[in-house]
Amino acid sequence: MQVWKEYQAQHKERFLEELLELLRIPSISADSRYNNDTKRCAEAVKEQLIKAGADNVEVCPTAGHPIVYGEKMIDPALPTVLVYGHYDVQPPDPLELWHSGPFEPVIKDGKIFARGSADDKGQFYMHVKAFETMSATNTLPCNVKFMIEGEEEVGSNNLGKFLEENKERLEADVVLISDTSMISLENPSIDTGLRGLSYMEVEVTGPNRDLHSGVYGGAVANPATILAKMIASLHDENNHITIPGFYDDVIDLSAAEREALNKAPFDEEAYKKDLGVKELWGEKGYTTIERTGIRPTCEVNGIWGGYTGEGAKTVLPSKAHAKISMRLVPNQDWVKISDLFKTHFEKIAPASVQVKVTAHHGGSPYVTPTDHIAYKAASQAIVSTFGKDPIPVRGGGSIPIVALFEKILGLKTVLLGFGLDSDNLHSPNEKFDLANYYKGIETIPYFHQHFAALSK
Amino acid sequence: MQVWKEYQAQHKERFLEELLELLRIPSISADSRYNNDTKRCAEAVKEQLIKAGADNVEVCPTAGHPIVYGEKMIDPALPTVLVYGHYDVQPPDPLELWHSGPFEPVIKDGKIFARGSADDKGQFYMHVKAFETMSATNTLPCNVKFMIEGEEEVGSNNLGKFLEENKERLEADVVLISDTSMISLENPSIDTGLRGLSYMEVEVTGPNRDLHSGVYGGAVANPATILAKMIASLHDENNHITIPGFYDDVIDLSAAEREALNKAPFDEEAYKKDLGVKELWGEKGYTTIERTGIRPTCEVNGIWGGYTGEGAKTVLPSKAHAKISMRLVPNQDWVKISDLFKTHFEKIAPASVQVKVTAHHGGSPYVTPTDHIAYKAASQAIVSTFGKDPIPVRGGGSIPIVALFEKILGLKTVLLGFGLDSDNLHSPNEKFDLANYYKGIETIPYFHQHFAALSK
Repeated sequence: MQVWKEYQAQHKERFLEELLELLRIPSISADSRYNNDTKRCAEAVKEQLIKAGADNVEVCPTAGHPIVYGEKMIDPALPTVLVYGHYDVQPPDPLELWHSGPFEPVIKDGKIFARGSADDKGQFYMHVKAFETMSATNTLPCNVKFMIEGEEEVGSNNLGKFLEENKERLEADVVLISDTSMISLENPSIDTGLRGLSYMEVEVTGPNRDLHSGVYGGAVANPATILAKMIASLHDENNHITIPGFYDDVIDLSAAEREALNKAPFDEEAYKKDLGVKELWGEKGYTTIERTGIRPTCEVNGIWGGYTGEGAKTVLPSKAHAKISMRLVPNQDWVKISDLFKTHFEKIAPASVQVKVTAHHGGSPYVTPTDHIAYKAASQAIVSTFGKDPIPVRGGGSIPIVALFEKILGLKTVLLGFGLDSDNLHSPNEKFDLANYYKGIETIPYFHQHFAALSK
Repeated sequence: MQVWKEYQAQHKERFLEELLELLRIPSISADSRYNNDTKRCAEAVKEQLIKAGADNVEVCPTAGHPIVYGEKMIDPALPTVLVYGHYDVQPPDPLELWHSGPFEPVIKDGKIFARGSADDKGQFYMHVKAFETMSATNTLPCNVKFMIEGEEEVGSNNLGKFLEENKERLEADVVLISDTSMISLENPSIDTGLRGLSYMEVEVTGPNRDLHSGVYGGAVANPATILAKMIASLHDENNHITIPGFYDDVIDLSAAEREALNKAPFDEEAYKKDLGVKELWGEKGYTTIERTGIRPTCEVNGIWGGYTGEGAKTVLPSKAHAKISMRLVPNQDWVKISDLFKTHFEKIAPASVQVKVTAHHGGSPYVTPTDHIAYKAASQAIVSTFGKDPIPVRGGGSIPIVALFEKILGLKTVLLGFGLDSDNLHSPNEKFDLANYYKGIETIPYFHQHFAALSK
C-alpha cells in the first residue's frame, strides 16, 4: 500500500522521537521506588493512543500498576484485533555494565540502546504507529483494541482479574503481540510457542545468627554450603532436572516435529562467539534450538548470602537465599510445578538447616495453531514486506498471560515479534535495531489487511 | 595484691567509660570508607597508652592502617612482656539484625553490646588498664611493651614488615595476647592452639553478559549453578574436604591427646539451643570440640550473583562470586593450602565457564607449649583470681600473626583470653561481659608477677 509507505516515510523521525520519550521513563515494575514513573509511563501511553486516533482511551487502575486501554471500532461486522503489550521494564542493574544510561536512550550503529527498547516499549509502540498510519490514511480494515499493561515483568498478577471484569470490552477475534524476536531480517520467523514460567525464591537458615567462622566453623551447617549442595542436586550429570515428577506432563515432540524445528538456521560457532563461551551447556540428547524451545529448564536467577562486601570477613552466615525459575513447556502446569519444586526443595534440606520456599509468580506455556487464520495473516504480512515466508520457531521466553487470553477470553494469540535474540533483553545495554522498528511498523498494517481479508 | 584491688575498685567506672569511648569509633579495617575513623582510633589508643604510663608511645604508619607502639622499660635485667592486640574491627553488617547501633555501645544485662567489645578492643584494653594499675601502684614487676595493630581483621598484611624492621624495639621474652575466649568464668580455660587461615575469593563467569533466562535458559552454563556445583563438591558425604592434598600435612592428635581435649565441659544440647539448630553438622568421626579445634574446615563466608533485589528478574547471570575460607591446623601451610585450593578450583571448573581464584590473606596455625614458663605464669594467674586451674583448649579461630612472632621475633605466644564463645564475634550484637572485662584487668597483673618470678 503506497499510501502507508508515504505516510510512514513522512513521519519517520517523529515515530522515533516519540519512542525515545517513552524510553526515558524508568517504568521498573519490580521496584516500588519507581511506582511514580510507572504511573507516568501509563499516562504517556494513554496520550499517544489518543494522538494515534484511538477512542475510549483509559488508564485502568489495578491492585498493582495500571493497564492502558484504547480502541477503534469502525464496524461491529468487521473482525477485531486485540493488541497486547507492556510498558513496564526489567530492572537495569548491574548498572556499571551499561555503556550509556539505561533510561537515556542513544542511537548507535543504527540501534536504539535503552532498557525497554525491545522489551517491550519499542515493540508495542510499532503497533501504535502502525495504527496511526492506518487511521490517518483511512485504511483501517478492521477494529482494533489496545491493552498495554504495566506488570508483565513481574508476572501480570492483576491482569487475570482485569480480563474477567472486562470480557465484553475485550471481545475480539485474536490477540496480537509483538514481544518476541525473529531470527534475523534475512530470516524472518514467527514464534509458534512460548515457554511457561515458575519463579521461586528460597531461604536457607542455619544458625540463628551470623557466626565467627573460626569459633564455630566445622561444627555447624553453613547455609550457603547447604544451599549450594541443594542447587547442585537440581540437575543430574546429564543436566536433566531431578525434581520428581517434573517431566511427567511434558509432551514430547515427534521426530518429524523436532526435525522441522532444527531446520531453522543456527550457527553454533557464531552463537558461542556472541556469548563469549568456549562450550555450550545443556540437557543431554537435545540441540540448542530444542534446549531453548521445547525443553523445560531450571535456572538460578540470583543467589546471595553472608559477606559480599569489600575485603574479607570470616563469617559463617545465618542465611543464604536464591531466586530460582523454571521455564515450562506444553503441557506443564506452572502451579503444579511450583508445588513440586517446593515439596522437593523442602524434602532435600538436611535437618541441620531450615528452608523457606515461596513462589513469586508463574505462567503456562502456549502454542499457536499454525492453521489459524491469524497466523496465516501474520505469515502473509511477513511475505508482503520481507518477500519470503517466515520460519516457524519455538520461543524460549514466557508471556504468562498468553495462556490466560485463551482461558478467560477464549482467544488465540499470534506472536509477531520483530526483536532479535541479541537485543540483550533483561541485560545491560538492551537495544532494538532501528531497521527492525521500522520494519515492524511497515509490516503490521499488512497483518490487519490480510486478517480482514481472510476473515471474510 | 590488695593494692591492685583497691586501685581498680576506685577507678572501675572510668575503666569502663574509656572503653566505651574507644568502642564508639567505627575502625572497620576492611572498608576503606572508614579509613579516617581507623586512623582516629589509633590516635585514641596512643593517648590512652600515654595516660596509662607508657613511654615512647608512637603511631607507626604502615602501607595500610597504622600500628600503635608503647613501652615501659623499668630494668633491662628484668624480663619483658610484649602485649599484642588490635584496635580494628569487623564490618558490622547485617546492620538490621543489631538491637542497638554497633558503634553506640550500650550496657544491658551486665554486657557491653558493641562491635569490637570483645574482639578485640575490650580485651586489649584490659592490658592497658592492668598496666595502669601496676604503674600507678609502682608494682610493675617486669618490662612491658605494647603493639596494637589495625589490620588484624584483614590479615595483618603489613605487620610482618613492621616486625622485620623493628626487631630490636620489639625484643621481649614472650608475647601476651587476649583475643580469644574461655569456656566460662566457672570453667576458666586457656587456648593452647589457634587454627590457621586461608581466605580465598572466586569468580565464575559464564556468558559475557547477563542473559534473558527464557531466550538462553537451557543452552548456556549458568555461573551460579556451576559455582553451586563446585562449592558442593568441596565436601564429600562425610563432610571431609575433597581438595587433593588438603590433609597431607595435618598432624593427627594421639588418642590420649584427643581424650584430654574432650574432657573440656561441653553441653551439646545447650550449644544447639544457643544456635537455634536442630542438628549439628561436621566431619564424620570427630566431636564438636575436635571439629572446631583440631580439624581444618572449608567455609563459604559469602556468595553472590545475578539479581538479588526486590521481586523477580528472569536473568541468567554472567557472573557468580564466593568468598571461601579454610581454617588450618598444625602443620598445614596456608600458602600451600591456598595454592592447592586455587589449583583444584580451577581444575574442577567445566569448560563452559571461566574461573578466577584470588587469595585474600592467610596465616599459619599455632600451638603454645604448655611447659613454657609464660604458659605456667598464665595458669598461675588464673589460679590466683579464679581459684582453680585453667583447662587447656584448642581455639578454632585464627590470629595469623602469632606464627609470625615465632618466625620473625623468635617469641612464643600465650593466649590469655577472657571472652566467651557466645560473644557474637564477627556477628550482629557482639558483646563482652562486664564481669569478664573486670576479671581480665584483675588477672593480668598476676601474670606479670608470676612471669617475673618464674623468670628468675
